[in-house]
Amino acid sequence: MTEPTFDFDRYDRIRPIRWTGDALELLDQRKLPFVVEYVRCDDADAVAAAIHALTVRGAPAIGIAAAWGVVLAARDIDAADGNAAAPQLEPALQRLNAARPTAVNLAWALARMRRVLVAAGADWRDVLAREAQAIADEDLAANRRMGALGAALIEPESGVLTHCNTGSLATAGFGTALGVIRAGVAQGRIGKVYAGETRPWLQGARLTVWELQQDGISPTLIADSAAAHLMKTGAVHWVVVGADRICANGDVANKIGTYQLAIAARHHGVRFMVAAPSSTVDMATPSGDQIHIEERDPGELFGVGGVRTAAEEVGAWNPVFDVTPHELIDAIVTERGVIERPDEAAMRTAFGA
Amino acid sequence: MTEPTFDFDRYDRIRPIRWTGDALELLDQRKLPFVVEYVRCDDADAVAAAIHALTVRGAPAIGIAAAWGVVLAARDIDAADGNAAAPQLEPALQRLNAARPTAVNLAWALARMRRVLVAAGADWRDVLAREAQAIADEDLAANRRMGALGAALIEPESGVLTHCNTGSLATAGFGTALGVIRAGVAQGRIGKVYAGETRPWLQGARLTVWELQQDGISPTLIADSAAAHLMKTGAVHWVVVGADRICANGDVANKIGTYQLAIAARHHGVRFMVAAPSSTVDMATPSGDQIHIEERDPGELFGVGGVRTAAEEVGAWNPVFDVTPHELIDAIVTERGVIERPDEAAMRTAFGA
Repeated sequence: MTEPTFDFDRYDRIRPIRWTGDALELLDQRKLPFVVEYVRCDDADAVAAAIHALTVRGAPAIGIAAAWGVVLAARDIDAADGNAAAPQLEPALQRLNAARPTAVNLAWALARMRRVLVAAGADWRDVLAREAQAIADEDLAANRRMGALGAALIEPESGVLTHCNTGSLATAGFGTALGVIRAGVAQGRIGKVYAGETRPWLQGARLTVWELQQDGISPTLIADSAAAHLMKTGAVHWVVVGADRICANGDVANKIGTYQLAIAARHHGVRFMVAAPSSTVDMATPSGDQIHIEERDPGELFGVGGVRTAAEEVGAWNPVFDVTPHELIDAIVTERGVIERPDEAAMRTAFGA
Repeated sequence: MTEPTFDFDRYDRIRPIRWTGDALELLDQRKLPFVVEYVRCDDADAVAAAIHALTVRGAPAIGIAAAWGVVLAARDIDAADGNAAAPQLEPALQRLNAARPTAVNLAWALARMRRVLVAAGADWRDVLAREAQAIADEDLAANRRMGALGAALIEPESGVLTHCNTGSLATAGFGTALGVIRAGVAQGRIGKVYAGETRPWLQGARLTVWELQQDGISPTLIADSAAAHLMKTGAVHWVVVGADRICANGDVANKIGTYQLAIAARHHGVRFMVAAPSSTVDMATPSGDQIHIEERDPGELFGVGGVRTAAEEVGAWNPVFDVTPHELIDAIVTERGVIERPDEAAMRTAFGA
């Protein structure tokens, strides 16, 4: 597989996470697309709060932000080496880990930080900072690789549908599913991009559309519930989504609505691709049945942009994720390669026990 | 089949269409649930405009409103009998008919008005008014009958999911799918009601929730895209929806998102019921392939309640309806009876050629 030949910078202008050397700046994704504003975080608790509040979102981006949160937490601790610092840092690590329950990248990034910390000497603060930077750099490189691998599966002039935001905004850059779409558009494999608006938080309408526009790609917005009808018209050849967690059997937890798209795709013979870094793979979770699905404030369904739309005093059920069983997935793409028709055996071959 | 024994008035307090004797008052469904306000229509064009603007919506309610629009148009015409009035009234009938393209009840109600008109003598204005009232009265009676028939299919303590608004607000009263739900709740057959919010116009969140609350029923609101995940939890036993047009082979045009629910229901073994008056049946349309699907302003996807949420300058695809093929439907319920596993033969038996 040769690396893609297109100009990455042309198709990837957004960076949601900036490390200034003494603070973390997060592009406030609650205010996009109308206000482009970075929020400054000076300590780990500010980072944890930003993760919980969705200032930063997207599984890979959350992991990167949390890693920088550990670097910030280290500044308050006096220790001769990493081993001595570790127990003192642990409470901050726990608070960061608790900020979002479903995304495995968060725990994965924090585990990486712990691992280098305990082995570090007197320069343990520098070691943490280098590791956080490495997590970000590796994520960007993984996304570019994934984009090339995923796009290669797509026939020229295809229509693709994506869900939520899995782009530069959700990662260190380039994106996972949106990276595949960027690469596919650049290579002429994708003729048309559809974006589901992704209620309740409208990541598709607010973020995916805006982000692709910055890079000269014009998606067509649809209501989430129009996806099956769109597939019936023959306009969609692939659904391409990201993942918050990929289980040992290939089941995928991702934004609520993903599962519904997978069922509709199978019904119409539309193919279904999951693109996510290998850090999203959680071989310790046997299947989707073991995943705790985060439920958020029902109030997120009561309105949009501060405007109440639902009738008063209504109850609501607001799961943030769902699980797509591996039987409905045609390909899982990570930076390590493509797994077609994923199942437990294929996952074990690719990712070990 | 005995008629239901519960107190209709307790479960049916809303009336969206009021005839004052010299004007039509329409409950403004764009302003619900926060403002309860009737719009006064003094002529047929005001009624046509109200239908187009969704002041009144729901296939049966549109038909009833249009019938009263004909009564209003009659006041401007000088004719000795119905036959003489007919050609003069035709332009108003055409404008009313053009206000919404998909709902067959609109054309059906206008055809009824034409039919009585041409046979009428000097009292043709009174004949029109009586026919409009009859259309409304028959709709309410049909809904109550349909509610009983549909509820009888549901096992005690079931969970049901509905889409859009098919209630008193969409009809002369009681509702079609919501009539089934009202009857089912009254009889203890339905233990839990879920309402999809129904983007882009949020009829579920705004109207269905409000309407059921008025009658003491507390639905749980979900994002449209959470439906499949909800079904997977086992909480839903029936999806119950209305229809804007039922074809000769049992294919059903209904609010965008219905088709997606039907696919998800079949995938989970959840049963799928369509409840609609026989006026919704269009035996002249062989299948869903022949239905023109109305597309509305893409701007409806760009925000909610006047607040812009989508990125600027995005394109959108905004079909208002989709077609659910009869293979995915377990039962079509009209006031004439229940058609299980509808197909062309069963439809012809029930509704003739």
